[in-house]
Amino acid sequence: MTAINKLQSYLKANEIDLAFITTPDNVFYFSNFKSNPHERLLGVVVFKDQDPLLICPKMEVPDAKASGWNFETIGHLDTDNPWQILSNAINARGVALSNFAIEKAHLTVERLEALQQFYPQANFVRLDDQINKMRVIKDEVELEKMREAAKLADYAVEVGCKEIAEGKTEMEILTAIENAVKEKGYNMSFETMVLSGPKTASPHGTPGNRKIQKGDMILFDLGVIYEGYCSDITRTVAYGEPTDEQKLIYQTVLAANENAINTVKSGVRAMDLDKIARDTIGNAGYGEYFTHRLGHGLGISVHEFPSINGSNEMELLPGMVFTIEPGIYKEGVTGVRIEDDVVVTENGVEVLTKFPKELMIL
Amino acid sequence: MTAINKLQSYLKANEIDLAFITTPDNVFYFSNFKSNPHERLLGVVVFKDQDPLLICPKMEVPDAKASGWNFETIGHLDTDNPWQILSNAINARGVALSNFAIEKAHLTVERLEALQQFYPQANFVRLDDQINKMRVIKDEVELEKMREAAKLADYAVEVGCKEIAEGKTEMEILTAIENAVKEKGYNMSFETMVLSGPKTASPHGTPGNRKIQKGDMILFDLGVIYEGYCSDITRTVAYGEPTDEQKLIYQTVLAANENAINTVKSGVRAMDLDKIARDTIGNAGYGEYFTHRLGHGLGISVHEFPSINGSNEMELLPGMVFTIEPGIYKEGVTGVRIEDDVVVTENGVEVLTKFPKELMIL
Repeated sequence: MTAINKLQSYLKANEIDLAFITTPDNVFYFSNFKSNPHERLLGVVVFKDQDPLLICPKMEVPDAKASGWNFETIGHLDTDNPWQILSNAINARGVALSNFAIEKAHLTVERLEALQQFYPQANFVRLDDQINKMRVIKDEVELEKMREAAKLADYAVEVGCKEIAEGKTEMEILTAIENAVKEKGYNMSFETMVLSGPKTASPHGTPGNRKIQKGDMILFDLGVIYEGYCSDITRTVAYGEPTDEQKLIYQTVLAANENAINTVKSGVRAMDLDKIARDTIGNAGYGEYFTHRLGHGLGISVHEFPSINGSNEMELLPGMVFTIEPGIYKEGVTGVRIEDDVVVTENGVEVLTKFPKELMIL
Repeated sequence: MTAINKLQSYLKANEIDLAFITTPDNVFYFSNFKSNPHERLLGVVVFKDQDPLLICPKMEVPDAKASGWNFETIGHLDTDNPWQILSNAINARGVALSNFAIEKAHLTVERLEALQQFYPQANFVRLDDQINKMRVIKDEVELEKMREAAKLADYAVEVGCKEIAEGKTEMEILTAIENAVKEKGYNMSFETMVLSGPKTASPHGTPGNRKIQKGDMILFDLGVIYEGYCSDITRTVAYGEPTDEQKLIYQTVLAANENAINTVKSGVRAMDLDKIARDTIGNAGYGEYFTHRLGHGLGISVHEFPSINGSNEMELLPGMVFTIEPGIYKEGVTGVRIEDDVVVTENGVEVLTKFPKELMIL
């Protein structure tokens, strides 16, 4: 059953006349058409009991068809009112509209107001949770893509480790990594992070022209897209012998990562994973330096549902994919983060990222 | 007068009690703090007559302060309800809230509903047009950054042209370009486009492993960020002698680009620029192959207000910066686009991108 058919079943069961989907990643999920329309209107309309339609900038109509979309496709020019065109196309289907599902977590207030102008009587209901529920479970075809994306991420970290040398800048290493990935024909799933020495202590630092020196810890955080699916890995390595406290921090983060991974299986709650990692770090006396959640869902988006944090009571189900990325960031000592991509299975876990995790001293 | 002060004057004049700004580029404009918080809450609250405050993920508080933000800064953890924390901070100011300005073109329906829960009596008014009005006029400090960003874009195209050789892939050339920019310590403002041969005929194509051959036209579309400000340039060059029709298409696009640029000055309407370029292309018989608007505003965002299209009656004012990028995309022949970044001046135009535009045959 396709994603469109599954959504139609949901619409019927909930007496929703149509769903309007505009988030590019959700549009890709339902149509296989990947596009960033910037501020232009791109959307899939899924009707309860008719074929869906796609609206996109006119110049992208051929790309939409080339990506395999075989249903009605409506193009609009920058000089058109795309809402009028959309409304005409919807009205042509002769559907009575009372319940209209929208992505409330993504649709802007302005766009809702535009829809309300054309459908002043409609009741706008929330579609996000249903799409999350569908996207959160990856099928075997999706998992195969994510395994490939993770392999490419492992490769990218390997390239980064080989590039480390006295006097090289973070940017030079970063460029070599992206270079190697692009030569294979792939794109990164987000801006690659290479942080060295004191800069590792900022969980969201920016790579720059700092030169690598003996004694630095070096943190890589990166990901690769394979056929529309993302990986996301972090590894921290040492260039030269680390201090005792740096080693202790590393082993603590590693234990947190492994304890959380070993807890993953169907039926466990997301918050339990966060707790076991946080307890591991807290018991070692570094609780105050683990300042973010344990992880996030991964798939078509590099950050997607669910959030793996201390208050998420959601039970894990087979086919869910997310990151496990505990970290300790202690200024004046080092930052360490170790991140893997994992799949929940019936009885445990499959770890997609396989780059070694024992402390590597280069 | 700072951007915050200007906005406060606007709030006072319009009896708006506070403005809530969450778009990362607008947060940067008002705070100088550049951050991509993903789904987490990041926002600047500007009060009519009190100091502003910033709310951001707790781990980013030090980065916010390091970027020069000297006002109240509130961090939230992933386990917090950030709306509760925001509401507490606002309520602590003891301000009576009836008019609440939001970015309707960016704020999601979900976030509006969260605000409505805390402020059920508030009237939510549109802030977007005021911010657009402020951001659209670049001051000399901003223009200086944009000149540097444009120089870097010129340099990147030059690198690309030098890399062209028989058998090299689009991706290899793209990587060399990004490599050269990163070595200087800068990031691209969007995903670099290098398209060759038949692929130039798709205005939004994706670079891949196609190998360059003699007789190809090659299209570069790229930009660089300098201190938070973007450039955006397109050049199309020939590798080997082009056909007569390829030459005609090139000269037509070039004439459209130059005719539009020569029309730019204070008081002219955006739509007049689009028309003169479209007429130039239409008169040459290629009207149906120019399928997009003439250009878009440029600054902190790579696509920002205003849109330079056939229906925008807005009059140009000194300090506005936008792209002029006519194109012809004829399948089986070639695609050509020539894009420059221009600043409106009192009596004419300053062109920021300076890479040569006469047809280059490599």
